[in-house]
Amino acid sequence: MDSATFDPTTPLATATTLEALETPCLVLDADRMDRNITRLRSRLDSLGVSLRPHLKTAKSIDVARRLMSAPEGPATVSTLKEAEQFAADGVRDMIYAVGIAPAKLARVTELRAMGVDLVVILDTVEQAKAVAEASTDAGIRIPAMIEIDCDGHRSGVVPANYAQLLEIGQTLTEGAELRGVMTHAGDSYKGGGAEAQHRYAEAERSAVVEAAQLLRSAGLPCPVVSVGSTPTAHHAKDLTGVTEVRAGVFVFFDLVMAGIGVCQVDDIGLSVLATVIGHQREKGWIITDSGWMSLSRDRGTSKQAVDQGYGLVCDIQGNTYRDIIVADANQEHGIIAARPGSDARLPDLRVGDRVRILPNHACATAAQHEAYHVVRGQSHAVEACWPRFGGW
Amino acid sequence: MDSATFDPTTPLATATTLEALETPCLVLDADRMDRNITRLRSRLDSLGVSLRPHLKTAKSIDVARRLMSAPEGPATVSTLKEAEQFAADGVRDMIYAVGIAPAKLARVTELRAMGVDLVVILDTVEQAKAVAEASTDAGIRIPAMIEIDCDGHRSGVVPANYAQLLEIGQTLTEGAELRGVMTHAGDSYKGGGAEAQHRYAEAERSAVVEAAQLLRSAGLPCPVVSVGSTPTAHHAKDLTGVTEVRAGVFVFFDLVMAGIGVCQVDDIGLSVLATVIGHQREKGWIITDSGWMSLSRDRGTSKQAVDQGYGLVCDIQGNTYRDIIVADANQEHGIIAARPGSDARLPDLRVGDRVRILPNHACATAAQHEAYHVVRGQSHAVEACWPRFGGW
Repeated sequence: MDSATFDPTTPLATATTLEALETPCLVLDADRMDRNITRLRSRLDSLGVSLRPHLKTAKSIDVARRLMSAPEGPATVSTLKEAEQFAADGVRDMIYAVGIAPAKLARVTELRAMGVDLVVILDTVEQAKAVAEASTDAGIRIPAMIEIDCDGHRSGVVPANYAQLLEIGQTLTEGAELRGVMTHAGDSYKGGGAEAQHRYAEAERSAVVEAAQLLRSAGLPCPVVSVGSTPTAHHAKDLTGVTEVRAGVFVFFDLVMAGIGVCQVDDIGLSVLATVIGHQREKGWIITDSGWMSLSRDRGTSKQAVDQGYGLVCDIQGNTYRDIIVADANQEHGIIAARPGSDARLPDLRVGDRVRILPNHACATAAQHEAYHVVRGQSHAVEACWPRFGGW
Repeated sequence: MDSATFDPTTPLATATTLEALETPCLVLDADRMDRNITRLRSRLDSLGVSLRPHLKTAKSIDVARRLMSAPEGPATVSTLKEAEQFAADGVRDMIYAVGIAPAKLARVTELRAMGVDLVVILDTVEQAKAVAEASTDAGIRIPAMIEIDCDGHRSGVVPANYAQLLEIGQTLTEGAELRGVMTHAGDSYKGGGAEAQHRYAEAERSAVVEAAQLLRSAGLPCPVVSVGSTPTAHHAKDLTGVTEVRAGVFVFFDLVMAGIGVCQVDDIGLSVLATVIGHQREKGWIITDSGWMSLSRDRGTSKQAVDQGYGLVCDIQGNTYRDIIVADANQEHGIIAARPGSDARLPDLRVGDRVRILPNHACATAAQHEAYHVVRGQSHAVEACWPRFGGW
């Protein structure tokens, strides 16, 4: 065998049925995806704000085009690789929503020189100075937004820290461009019910609106006021003063989102198709070829009221089996069993039969795969194969 | 920007220093890797058995060639994608060590037709019949090994189940090829000290030797008797009756292996290079651009005596900071902090400074990356960039 007779990089093929696909693989229910997008878009329309979808969950131009209001954007990305890939596919309006490292500004400058309005975020004076310096070097004004801390979960300036906020704002206005303020209520993923989510959403709104007012009262510009997380986007009642909402995982949803009540299990559009490869009947186990390499190591439901193991098991049509989960996983093996304490009986599956597994966390599970196999309709016919990418 | 002026698939470039690499990225200390390989090879030489390295950790032909005793193998793989990729690079002797799904036999047959001695494993009569049927259809004899259960952790036939073992053996001998028996002491990853590991190693040995004797006494062939896990491979005292040992993660080692005493922290050859992007000084946090997307969601040390969070933090030269870990991680953010309860002080790192993070689980962390940046010597100069692959 030489490279002329055997090419391991054969392009991804499409198949017409789930039975014909190689397993494990990623299945995307496009009907559910469309419904999830329509639902959030209608909600934000009624609140009078625009959606700047986060593309870090999908990392696919085919999904991105369905998420964005126009082929040019707006959009949010989590890596410069996403910015470069989506730019190559025509997206022109993006926020790179991870605090900028000075060494990454060369790639930002390169994208801006190609006509992409790529905006960076930051929360320190050092970063603002680095953005100003890179702007001077390139003879442009790189736009940056100040990240605001609304709940203490990770990064950002607290609005009460006036001095820091103004020093960053002034540094950017003088040497670069102050595009606005942004925040993310990471704590909203902890759940707590609708009332808690209303509070998280209001905490997001009030933090950025307060920061924007502070900047403006000092004579600094602040055109964009951006908030966003999937839970708060689905619970906000009033977004006065906010200009846009960022959200990402809602496009597919997952068991973590269902566990905190942001969606129902039958809204989850992503699953991993797996094949049964064995049984340990005396232990009540079914063994599949879908281990953590295809499901991810994410155990996001482990601290929720209902622990879904490594995922909830469905038949090939996507109908859930009551209380049947991937109880444990090795690299390329999944162990399907009844949820501890449940009286559910294992489905009667034979070697070669197929199941679909709903993921704990769509961002993490999708990242383990190179493509989405897209199904639609009652038949769950596979109508397309959409590539996705990874890396930085 | 069009595709003529911007190509997102630019080949991976090499750099000459760790300071010049884009972050996050994967760093491989080739000196440590070489030492780990030499150590296990010497050990198995003294026990009189050959090494069939598992390539699922590395998924890189450059690493595989250093692991294998010859360019043709032998080797072990966990996916047919690995078998196909390594076959394209000249490997000719492989065990696909995950129970075979009947629908995958077409790809096995195709590889065998190209001159690759690819062996499958199975533990049910149904699978043996499917292998016999595929053999008849292709006019060949597909070799299969019977997976033996030595510790109840996952798959396999228990040797005491004589009837099942013999029925599988007879089905394969009549319609395909019975290549031998194999087992894997998954429970050995739980640790328990040297004495426990000696017992796990002996449990592996005695289970397959007993199964081999049973098959042979029934007049069936059993040329290969295969055991393997990284912990047992480093603790076995006597491998009488065993013909080969499979092990994989030892090539890089990781914090889980260090936590159960199979290696020292300074044997770990894999790390993720990260850049500081912020601080929350009042919380004692340093924020980096290395979140779970680059580290993986693996929390394998969470149940060990020392919980390493999402990884142990080192300076750019790979020297560990005492008790400084990645305490939490989001998709593209890592939060560095002192280990809970420790009096360690955070290192004085500024925005733009770099650190290296030792992973909980090398297989999972490596899988998040497309290449290894290879360093060697006191200078940690980057001497190569070795591509790696994923998928099935």
